Amino acid sequence: MDRYMRAAIEEARMGLAEDGIPIGSVLVHRGEIIGRGHNRRVQSGSAVLHGEMDALEQAGRQPASVYRDCTLYTTLSPCPMCSGAILLYGIPRVVVGENQTFLGEEELLRSRGIEVEVLQLDECIGMMTHFIETFPELWNEDIGE
Amino acid sequence: MDRYMRAAIEEARMGLAEDGIPIGSVLVHRGEIIGRGHNRRVQSGSAVLHGEMDALEQAGRQPASVYRDCTLYTTLSPCPMCSGAILLYGIPRVVVGENQTFLGEEELLRSRGIEVEVLQLDECIGMMTHFIETFPELWNEDIGE
Repeated sequence: MDRYMRAAIEEARMGLAEDGIPIGSVLVHRGEIIGRGHNRRVQSGSAVLHGEMDALEQAGRQPASVYRDCTLYTTLSPCPMCSGAILLYGIPRVVVGENQTFLGEEELLRSRGIEVEVLQLDECIGMMTHFIETFPELWNEDIGE
Repeated sequence: MDRYMRAAIEEARMGLAEDGIPIGSVLVHRGEIIGRGHNRRVQSGSAVLHGEMDALEQAGRQPASVYRDCTLYTTLSPCPMCSGAILLYGIPRVVVGENQTFLGEEELLRSRGIEVEVLQLDECIGMMTHFIETFPELWNEDIGE
């Protein structure tokens, strides 16, 4: 695994240590991490700060030219909101830790020309599986089962 | 125009008064506004708080059952990110002020069974047209022309 996915997993583990949902993400521009974050539903009562969104937010206001030269790393398959953010900003490549515990809008992204690579990492699958089994009500709170 | 779109326009005008991008939104649950907001790109340097996202954020953590009984009002056609958030939360109905200055993912929403009503209000068109003409660089900053 490269250091970017390692950083995304570190973010997910930080979220877990804060009693949050363990999903992390980093935004990489030409080899440099320009934003990193993790899901903040529990920590901030946030309905919009998923891991990917938090990484985008931490990157701050960027010009279109930067986004179009970025790769987004995320430990879990991106949900419709995060996939929409990827489409909005024209991020051309997404690297996903796993899509076994949740399958997001990978097909929509691919249909719009975005490269989606799924690593299917045991570490990511294990982290989410344990979380969902331990806190099913939290996992199902916002979008239902 | 009903009081919900009126409230969304008020939010857009608040954004304008803060030197921000004039797009506002309210989230309505069974007749009650449970979240309201406006684009905060300028005010907070935010890459994720579009008007619709800010309204969702202000509504806080809600259960799936609430979202599925909501209508989202927005002064401008929802971009891919905001449309993705609507899909994520299963919000069944969206009322749009106008889609003449920007056309978002209305067709994607409709293809997923979401009711999208476009009011094409002169007030909304005028507000965005004036903003885009006055601040074209700000309008084109993040997603390009």
